[in-house]
Amino acid sequence: MNKRLSHYDSAGRASIVDVSDKPITERSATARAFVAMTPKVVSALPNNRKGDPLEVARIAGICAAKKTADLIPLCHPLPLTHIAVEFRVNINGIEVEATARTAARTGVEMEAMTAAAIAALTIYDMTKGLDKGIEIRDIFLLEKRGGKSGFYRRRSGKKPEVRD
Amino acid sequence: MNKRLSHYDSAGRASIVDVSDKPITERSATARAFVAMTPKVVSALPNNRKGDPLEVARIAGICAAKKTADLIPLCHPLPLTHIAVEFRVNINGIEVEATARTAARTGVEMEAMTAAAIAALTIYDMTKGLDKGIEIRDIFLLEKRGGKSGFYRRRSGKKPEVRD
Amino acid sequence: MNKRLSHYDSAGRASIVDVSDKPITERSATARAFVAMTPKVVSALPNNRKGDPLEVARIAGICAAKKTADLIPLCHPLPLTHIAVEFRVNINGIEVEATARTAARTGVEMEAMTAAAIAALTIYDMTKGLDKGIEIRDIFLLEKRGGKSGFYRRRSGKKPEVRD
Amino acid sequence: MNKRLSHYDSAGRASIVDVSDKPITERSATARAFVAMTPKVVSALPNNRKGDPLEVARIAGICAAKKTADLIPLCHPLPLTHIAVEFRVNINGIEVEATARTAARTGVEMEAMTAAAIAALTIYDMTKGLDKGIEIRDIFLLEKRGGKSGFYRRRSGKKPEVRD
Amino acid sequence: MNKRLSHYDSAGRASIVDVSDKPITERSATARAFVAMTPKVVSALPNNRKGDPLEVARIAGICAAKKTADLIPLCHPLPLTHIAVEFRVNINGIEVEATARTAARTGVEMEAMTAAAIAALTIYDMTKGLDKGIEIRDIFLLEKRGGKSGFYRRRSGKKPEVRD
Amino acid sequence: MNKRLSHYDSAGRASIVDVSDKPITERSATARAFVAMTPKVVSALPNNRKGDPLEVARIAGICAAKKTADLIPLCHPLPLTHIAVEFRVNINGIEVEATARTAARTGVEMEAMTAAAIAALTIYDMTKGLDKGIEIRDIFLLEKRGGKSGFYRRRSGKKPEVRD
Repeated sequence: MNKRLSHYDSAGRASIVDVSDKPITERSATARAFVAMTPKVVSALPNNRKGDPLEVARIAGICAAKKTADLIPLCHPLPLTHIAVEFRVNINGIEVEATARTAARTGVEMEAMTAAAIAALTIYDMTKGLDKGIEIRDIFLLEKRGGKSGFYRRRSGKKPEVRD
Repeated sequence: MNKRLSHYDSAGRASIVDVSDKPITERSATARAFVAMTPKVVSALPNNRKGDPLEVARIAGICAAKKTADLIPLCHPLPLTHIAVEFRVNINGIEVEATARTAARTGVEMEAMTAAAIAALTIYDMTKGLDKGIEIRDIFLLEKRGGKSGFYRRRSGKKPEVRD
Repeated sequence: MNKRLSHYDSAGRASIVDVSDKPITERSATARAFVAMTPKVVSALPNNRKGDPLEVARIAGICAAKKTADLIPLCHPLPLTHIAVEFRVNINGIEVEATARTAARTGVEMEAMTAAAIAALTIYDMTKGLDKGIEIRDIFLLEKRGGKSGFYRRRSGKKPEVRD
Repeated sequence: MNKRLSHYDSAGRASIVDVSDKPITERSATARAFVAMTPKVVSALPNNRKGDPLEVARIAGICAAKKTADLIPLCHPLPLTHIAVEFRVNINGIEVEATARTAARTGVEMEAMTAAAIAALTIYDMTKGLDKGIEIRDIFLLEKRGGKSGFYRRRSGKKPEVRD
Repeated sequence: MNKRLSHYDSAGRASIVDVSDKPITERSATARAFVAMTPKVVSALPNNRKGDPLEVARIAGICAAKKTADLIPLCHPLPLTHIAVEFRVNINGIEVEATARTAARTGVEMEAMTAAAIAALTIYDMTKGLDKGIEIRDIFLLEKRGGKSGFYRRRSGKKPEVRD
Repeated sequence: MNKRLSHYDSAGRASIVDVSDKPITERSATARAFVAMTPKVVSALPNNRKGDPLEVARIAGICAAKKTADLIPLCHPLPLTHIAVEFRVNINGIEVEATARTAARTGVEMEAMTAAAIAALTIYDMTKGLDKGIEIRDIFLLEKRGGKSGFYRRRSGKKPEVRD
């Protein structure tokens, strides 16, 4: 294994690695999270009269993507050009899909992961009064474009959000 | 089901619910997250010469707990009196356990959940160069003390962090 | 006039004034802002298929109230116990009403004002593509309770939000 | 009206709209706000011995421009190249004028508006001890340069800051 | 030496130490910093026509005190009741003195130190165009009150800010 | 002396100076700070069983560099491409050396200075329980590259970190 831990310099010290010599290119990433809850709780979500908890979670996820460099110590600050957070309401929970884009010297994988995680935590926060057993499951990178490593897409066989 | 979604007032509007009339009491909460990775990646973690990725993740989790009200839109700002983040290195990943305490009018469940999630995201960030398949799994509340609902502990039968 | 500018000490230096000796009491404040727009733009607001711009503005206002001490240099950090932002859709614009509560040594007037202002700016941000002439008008304190100065309510004769 | 609400994608979901394909160009914007107060309060402002409340407000406005993407949920983070906040002391209040510049894929209108609003709120905060009736009036865009829509300047006939 | 490093628990792990059982008491602290510059630069400071660099530094120091828990990883968030930053203009530099107060379970030493450091860095930032040799010297705790350890004052014999 | 105070416009008003017309070039800066402590305290540092206080300080310094524009009022926000914080353990204290890089229209001197200062404050925070006399000394710019003024390196004769 000739790969290294990320964010360590050649002397083994944690740092924000020097990307000064890398070219600015288009980058995008999509991450997914799943908030598992009972069908009863899922069905309660749209019944709220004036506000939709998923809209609050969407805004939380978008705002969190912009805070990534403030949350993850060794992430570079990046000028994001696009952030979107989408939801799919399943019978046993809410699937979160977050996308980030930039034109930068390094990728936006952590921005997408952070948006998905905080959107999921916000859904949890708004539904936890209905059921203490709600859990966040399977935050993972779905897709990544741009940069030296090019295109990556998670193998579709895995369906971690549907379990028995 | 006579419970309501959290953070909505009687007219169904999202708000930071009024806790002015609730007494200040001792509250604590512990949350868990699991970062799943191959045994090969797990074994690479302690091999870093000068810094330990888990120490970076611990600081990230502690700092994130203090930012909870800035990340989760409808959380009250709380004067935390204790934050701790611990790790257990398993053969197939890293278990994260985050604890928060306060003396306040509302609980610290989201602070513990946020600390666990951001510590897990930081581990992910530092190991993702070794394996693209690393995933964060099963962020959940382990234990909660204080407040009107009293003591809660997740049933121990569930062992979501060990899978095959 | 024996009153003084706020936030200056006896030597005339800007400071966060010492409230250590003041008792902790219940405080609340309500502020109002008005976003003036043409009836055509007002009528376009509810026509958005999947999201409501006012829900985004509500979250922005609530989050801004929690950032008041970070935005207004000489404000004390306060442990808010309640934040709510409401809207009334008029024929010629959107009325914003923001309320904040705390139990503290100083009042939450600036928290209510900041929530109203940022909610109004967010409405402006989301509607500015429809009309460049949209303006924010008349951010003012509507009501204040608690503290040494007691109850205050703005005289109702003023209706700055309805103009010709 | 074939224009759309800002910040919604084609499916009607709130997002930080994708500007990846837009060119980086010079952008600037100037916004104005007015803090209305009695002549008695205006005359008290320069009488402070050692500090000038308007200098505090200037710094608050400049710092707020840098926080715009953190305050207005759907704003892109922008690398500002210039921020200035100026004041004109009128007989019946303080006129605030804030300017922001960048070289970016989207404009700085909200940065100028936010700087003007927070500078105005800071003046309010520092004078509110003298008069409860102080109000912030008429936050609006004065001028905008750059981007697809080109140059815009508000018609000069409007003088919202002078009223009887 | 039976004292321990701060912020480590009994197992040697970095944490925000649990202060839940400590009583809320009055605490204050005063810290000092010195920005050394040539007499020529010192004399240039008051010559600025419309603004005073020390006023900008004062606001920066006050705002920084409120960000202490966000900057110093293991500091508790504290509800500050007072922050003041003062300056003494010497022939060979500017002396900064920052004071913080709170009623809390732990002290405000780091808030005073952080305010002094950031005020000093801001003075440096505003004068660095005049002389590259400007340095910040001797940030130290001058005085501390409250808490278990009681009153502390640095021995006055030390005069680190005057050197030859 | 035809130089001017930094950050003031031609009318003498504090502002974030307009760098729109300056070219984007490579910039780097290195700053140093020294935390003076008794040899007894220095020798206690590596004795901590599970965590290293210097690793906490390193992360604090790196994170602080990313917050520079939020801490120093008139600093431009910059897209940092590299941040590193290193330590040298001397007999009488810890030497901190912080480096920042960017490709931008203005330099990263303040980012390096801020990283060094906050790393030093964090070391102070973690050792202050062992000795109240610990002090931060001599925060200064060691080296600067890029921009109009080109290369600068502090004269090596000065050894402010070793004193008797």
